[in-house]
Amino acid sequence: MTGYPTSIGTSDTTSITLLGHDLAQDLMGKVGFTELSYWLLTMRRPNPGQLRVFEAVLVALADHGFTPTALAARLTLLGAPDSIQGALAAGLLGGGSVYLGVTEDCGRFLDSVLAPARERGQVPDDDAGFDELAREAVLAQRAAGRLVPGLGHPVHKDGDPRTPVLIAIAEQEGVAGPYLRLFEAVGRVAPQVLGRNLPLNGAGVCGAALCDAGVDVAMLRGVALLARTAGLLGHLAEEMRRPVAPLVYHEVDRATQYLPPGPG
Amino acid sequence: MTGYPTSIGTSDTTSITLLGHDLAQDLMGKVGFTELSYWLLTMRRPNPGQLRVFEAVLVALADHGFTPTALAARLTLLGAPDSIQGALAAGLLGGGSVYLGVTEDCGRFLDSVLAPARERGQVPDDDAGFDELAREAVLAQRAAGRLVPGLGHPVHKDGDPRTPVLIAIAEQEGVAGPYLRLFEAVGRVAPQVLGRNLPLNGAGVCGAALCDAGVDVAMLRGVALLARTAGLLGHLAEEMRRPVAPLVYHEVDRATQYLPPGPG
Amino acid sequence: MTGYPTSIGTSDTTSITLLGHDLAQDLMGKVGFTELSYWLLTMRRPNPGQLRVFEAVLVALADHGFTPTALAARLTLLGAPDSIQGALAAGLLGGGSVYLGVTEDCGRFLDSVLAPARERGQVPDDDAGFDELAREAVLAQRAAGRLVPGLGHPVHKDGDPRTPVLIAIAEQEGVAGPYLRLFEAVGRVAPQVLGRNLPLNGAGVCGAALCDAGVDVAMLRGVALLARTAGLLGHLAEEMRRPVAPLVYHEVDRATQYLPPGPG
Amino acid sequence: MTGYPTSIGTSDTTSITLLGHDLAQDLMGKVGFTELSYWLLTMRRPNPGQLRVFEAVLVALADHGFTPTALAARLTLLGAPDSIQGALAAGLLGGGSVYLGVTEDCGRFLDSVLAPARERGQVPDDDAGFDELAREAVLAQRAAGRLVPGLGHPVHKDGDPRTPVLIAIAEQEGVAGPYLRLFEAVGRVAPQVLGRNLPLNGAGVCGAALCDAGVDVAMLRGVALLARTAGLLGHLAEEMRRPVAPLVYHEVDRATQYLPPGPG
Repeated sequence: MTGYPTSIGTSDTTSITLLGHDLAQDLMGKVGFTELSYWLLTMRRPNPGQLRVFEAVLVALADHGFTPTALAARLTLLGAPDSIQGALAAGLLGGGSVYLGVTEDCGRFLDSVLAPARERGQVPDDDAGFDELAREAVLAQRAAGRLVPGLGHPVHKDGDPRTPVLIAIAEQEGVAGPYLRLFEAVGRVAPQVLGRNLPLNGAGVCGAALCDAGVDVAMLRGVALLARTAGLLGHLAEEMRRPVAPLVYHEVDRATQYLPPGPG
Repeated sequence: MTGYPTSIGTSDTTSITLLGHDLAQDLMGKVGFTELSYWLLTMRRPNPGQLRVFEAVLVALADHGFTPTALAARLTLLGAPDSIQGALAAGLLGGGSVYLGVTEDCGRFLDSVLAPARERGQVPDDDAGFDELAREAVLAQRAAGRLVPGLGHPVHKDGDPRTPVLIAIAEQEGVAGPYLRLFEAVGRVAPQVLGRNLPLNGAGVCGAALCDAGVDVAMLRGVALLARTAGLLGHLAEEMRRPVAPLVYHEVDRATQYLPPGPG
Repeated sequence: MTGYPTSIGTSDTTSITLLGHDLAQDLMGKVGFTELSYWLLTMRRPNPGQLRVFEAVLVALADHGFTPTALAARLTLLGAPDSIQGALAAGLLGGGSVYLGVTEDCGRFLDSVLAPARERGQVPDDDAGFDELAREAVLAQRAAGRLVPGLGHPVHKDGDPRTPVLIAIAEQEGVAGPYLRLFEAVGRVAPQVLGRNLPLNGAGVCGAALCDAGVDVAMLRGVALLARTAGLLGHLAEEMRRPVAPLVYHEVDRATQYLPPGPG
Repeated sequence: MTGYPTSIGTSDTTSITLLGHDLAQDLMGKVGFTELSYWLLTMRRPNPGQLRVFEAVLVALADHGFTPTALAARLTLLGAPDSIQGALAAGLLGGGSVYLGVTEDCGRFLDSVLAPARERGQVPDDDAGFDELAREAVLAQRAAGRLVPGLGHPVHKDGDPRTPVLIAIAEQEGVAGPYLRLFEAVGRVAPQVLGRNLPLNGAGVCGAALCDAGVDVAMLRGVALLARTAGLLGHLAEEMRRPVAPLVYHEVDRATQYLPPGPG
């Protein structure tokens, strides 16, 4: 029988190997957890600039208050308080196409524009070129009746505060590349093409920055899930100290409006 | 109606607040993700020593190769490749009492010994005192027919390489306290009390070190789950590039031995 | 290498075998799904009485309105509408010790009383004998500071309407046995022993009836989860037609009370 | 504040209402669980023919041996034996696009052909008409580079034994309608259009039959998940009696081939 290949981890009686390194001797105390996470996701150790952008993205996406995912985790803990892994899993399961998916969708959208340009050897080198690429892409989305991922936010209607900060960090670190440049171009051309003002949102800029920082589009949602894991654990810790789920349950129960279905 | 209290996150049109701080201005690019995670779990910002121990624990627990949790995640991705959150959740759901639970069990065991000593004002201040406390506690576990959490490892029979490294880091950082001291004492007295050599394992030492670093026992499993999230994402990324789940499935299918049940 | 034994299912090019029978020829259209479910759980085909009790339990436990599990499933669908399996899983994860666990806890409690009596050859044959056994058991729970599983209900304070109906069905079908008789005895002696009136609840009576119907205590929670799967799918279907999760989210968001934590 | 509408369940001190009926008086012992499940999914009580088809589909989809979903559930139980809900959830999470999704995909494909025909008032009334519709649809799929859902099976290369049996049941019960007729037509025309013999598979015929039996396409995957819940509980019950997960884990561990990644 053939073997099962992996380059992640293995162990024998006296040592544990992770990513080809001795876990106890070479990694513990020497590599940070965020750095290790990037390494696991990409199989490459980040340079300092990539790491700083990756850290900033994880911080940006860790929490958003009482989102549906936080509520689902808290409500699940109420029924199964001895399975914190179940409450965490329930929260992560809401990290799908609508919320956490934006980071991935935006990265995929930008990549679908840049990959052919790269193949043609025609990645722009100035803002005018990126604006042109962005204009075509936004027009194509509109023609197909699709939204442009990364544009607009239900709360931050005049601008998502995370967007300029992450762009600035990426620029300082020399990580900003074609993905962020194209994303900024989308922000510049969208008002004119779509006829309304839609700010570049935080989930979207995170997708663009991660691509420039060397994360494959297939793992963008994974990064958002890692960030959200920390936020959900924060919610669960708070729920143990000061429960909110019973209040939510009670309020919904109190205000339930039972509508009899048609006759069976 | 009363409100739903939280101290984690909130937002308004122009700003996002996390843990009482402005996310974009004060946290992104200024606080690392691991530091933020500790802060979310404990509602306290770690000091540098606590943070280094927390980082080392997360690195120590991130992965263990083709564990059942990694296999469950990979097999789930095979059936639902478009829901990476589902594959991750499936992997985390195996983080229960048997594997990741050891970290929590060990912390709870140590705490069940230290809390009454603390109340009596009798936490030891030398090794002899900790040995005495450990001896009583190990005897009590044996009398009750219970295992001592944190003792023994199926592979690392002569010593888990993570244990001395984590203890050394905690000592360097001035974080080592009564939990680690009691845990070391358990390691010293166990051979004599139990009549066999059982090394202090890595999951256990992580529980002890996290307690000394200020993490509540109720969140120890949560820390292990955060660590494992990174490991599982690494497995899922590798699974996308070089699938193993179909090989496992095929091998099990090939070697299935169908045993007819008794007549229905 | 040794094989992987199973008696559930297997297939070859021309046939599919389930529980030792030809799925297409002998089971489809000839065995009901509930009957098959009992068979899968117990490896025995139910007799008609056992099946009717099993059906009644599944109907009794299928739904309870806007419970935390239903809310968690609906909130998860909001974030990941294309992964109905994720929303269902999130709902089931709340089926832990607090809610669905009562069915299992009650069965285990009754079994912990009956198993030793059975071993001693002293299972009672009249109500007086069951009352005596119940009195000892309830006293022992009280002495240990533990609740008696299956007693009391937050809403149905004067009696759970499911309890007498399920007992009547089990008696009609000749399925009622020592578990239900002991459970009824607990209901008779509890007011006197505990000094207050606590009705026998529906989750508890389901546990007792399932035990008498031949389901192992280890699978009682599994039966409750199967029942709840149908209820959760009903909620998800309704959520797709007439969403409630956005209303819940909006209401919680509106009424969030942000309490700054202490200084970081 | 507005209320939260539902037509599923509610309760007050003395009664429980489900689907507008008194649970204890009108449903328990009077309605089967499968019938209740159909009712919950569709908000309509099935007629006897629809119920028999629904039962046959659930039986057909309940299990398939050591599938990846069954393995994921068993491996999860190994790590978290006290959370059967977690092991079940892990198994269901693999019920995504690749396996259980075929039932939904096939229903959606057929619906995408029939809905416009229905709107035009041109649903065929003879086999020739359905063949024509099927030919166009299969050609369109091929032109778009998409597979035809419901065609082909990795094991049952010469015909899935479930397909003719389910069609026969649906015909006997007078439930067979345009979805099954179109599906059969796809089976007739595909060899010629695609140039190879691909049998109509069981997952596909279940999707077609459920549509004819009145289940909305949005809930087809839900029906497959309900069926699989029973199968997974059977696997978990068997795993408790005769564990297979440790054998799988051990075998994978034994045959792991560690490939060091490039230098970090």
